[in-house]
Amino acid sequence: MKTPNEVWTACRTGAWDRPTAGLAPGYAQANLVILPRDDAFDFLRLAQRNPKPMPVLEVLEMGESEPRLTAPGADLRTDLPRYRVYRNGELVEERTEIIDLWRGDLVAFLIGCSFTFEKALLDAGLPVRHIQCGCNVPMYRTNRPCVPAGRFSGPTVVSMRPIPAHLVPKAVTVTARFPAVHGAPIHIGEPEALGIADINKPDWGDAVPINPGEVPVFWACGVTPQAVAIQSRPPFMITHAPGHMFITSLLDDQVANG
Amino acid sequence: MKTPNEVWTACRTGAWDRPTAGLAPGYAQANLVILPRDDAFDFLRLAQRNPKPMPVLEVLEMGESEPRLTAPGADLRTDLPRYRVYRNGELVEERTEIIDLWRGDLVAFLIGCSFTFEKALLDAGLPVRHIQCGCNVPMYRTNRPCVPAGRFSGPTVVSMRPIPAHLVPKAVTVTARFPAVHGAPIHIGEPEALGIADINKPDWGDAVPINPGEVPVFWACGVTPQAVAIQSRPPFMITHAPGHMFITSLLDDQVANG
Repeated sequence: MKTPNEVWTACRTGAWDRPTAGLAPGYAQANLVILPRDDAFDFLRLAQRNPKPMPVLEVLEMGESEPRLTAPGADLRTDLPRYRVYRNGELVEERTEIIDLWRGDLVAFLIGCSFTFEKALLDAGLPVRHIQCGCNVPMYRTNRPCVPAGRFSGPTVVSMRPIPAHLVPKAVTVTARFPAVHGAPIHIGEPEALGIADINKPDWGDAVPINPGEVPVFWACGVTPQAVAIQSRPPFMITHAPGHMFITSLLDDQVANG
Repeated sequence: MKTPNEVWTACRTGAWDRPTAGLAPGYAQANLVILPRDDAFDFLRLAQRNPKPMPVLEVLEMGESEPRLTAPGADLRTDLPRYRVYRNGELVEERTEIIDLWRGDLVAFLIGCSFTFEKALLDAGLPVRHIQCGCNVPMYRTNRPCVPAGRFSGPTVVSMRPIPAHLVPKAVTVTARFPAVHGAPIHIGEPEALGIADINKPDWGDAVPINPGEVPVFWACGVTPQAVAIQSRPPFMITHAPGHMFITSLLDDQVANG
């Protein structure tokens, strides 16, 4: 699938319910968070204080499901492959649409996703292992707390890509151009220092092989709000399923610096 | 005055009530917006949609007046030189403290100010005319509307600095490093195309001379929320007086890219 519209349609009709890395290359991908109005302001403050894991691409008006600024014509209730529903911090359901859960007091947030800069990594000659393997990116809960806001607190989540040691500087400079989709890595090597006990057992997504001469490179991840939800227990929250992102109409270059 | 704390104290004791350009060089300066909780979420969405005029440095918890993240120890009710009070979109009062106006439901926003990058401009050999003249920076209402959010809509406001034509590219690259304090200019030359009828009659601040061979360069300005307030008429809003900014404890480099 080459365009955002093709992916939206495939999700809406049930033809695609798998991870989105590599789909519609050149278009920015986004994490989804949906909260009732009462919790939405606290959440937007949380994102403002933690722009590395939660760079906000769009906050929709209350009750609206069409992202008019970043993906006109799409519907956030149907156009992602998979959703997760949290009640009081517990994951109660995973499903492929949320039409019957929608309410007039809900506020939807689109948060930048690091899948966006993977085309730039590939163009620069860097490997993206989970695309090579055809699986989901590995994601880990870390020991780095977010700056809290209102009712919300919790750990930063990271995604990991193994990079050959001599290409790690290039991975930093290439991704630093994209602060709206997590930007430069937050940690390079030494998973233990991030509180990751076993790099082969990610908390979300799939394990990927790290070849000899490669270093694990960690980027802040938009699954952070889900880790925050588990810790902070808001009454009701809907998100995308990790790795199953929303494709926006923004070109990668529109979310890049300069 | 060299440090933020010296400026806070001078404002609090009444020893300083004038514009802040050039004070505490090397520390980031900020615009202030204070709104009741009911309007604060709409305003934060407005800022998220319009990051050039309204780059958010900190959103305080409701009822708090100490910016714990960007200026611990300061008090936003007393530590700016001058405040403006708007009721239903009308400027009703200018004063040097807001202690008796403070309420438990107020939310304070600190928004980046272009005074922050003026040290970088000076260090790069660029003139900053209003500092040379010892007056306030000229600011203009433009014909460029902000992307609206909830109850808020209104025009973008710009600040203007005259730059010698051969140094204009340098002015762009130097300030582009500072997106959190308005970043690169939004318009160069041609004031009429921005809807500015007379460059010698700014809407806020003071007119400055434009010398032969100089081009007026326009940066998005944190007075935009005041123009928005005039148009959108929220019941109650407090801001800084244009040019009379809050000095944060953040070093310029902490709000710069890279």
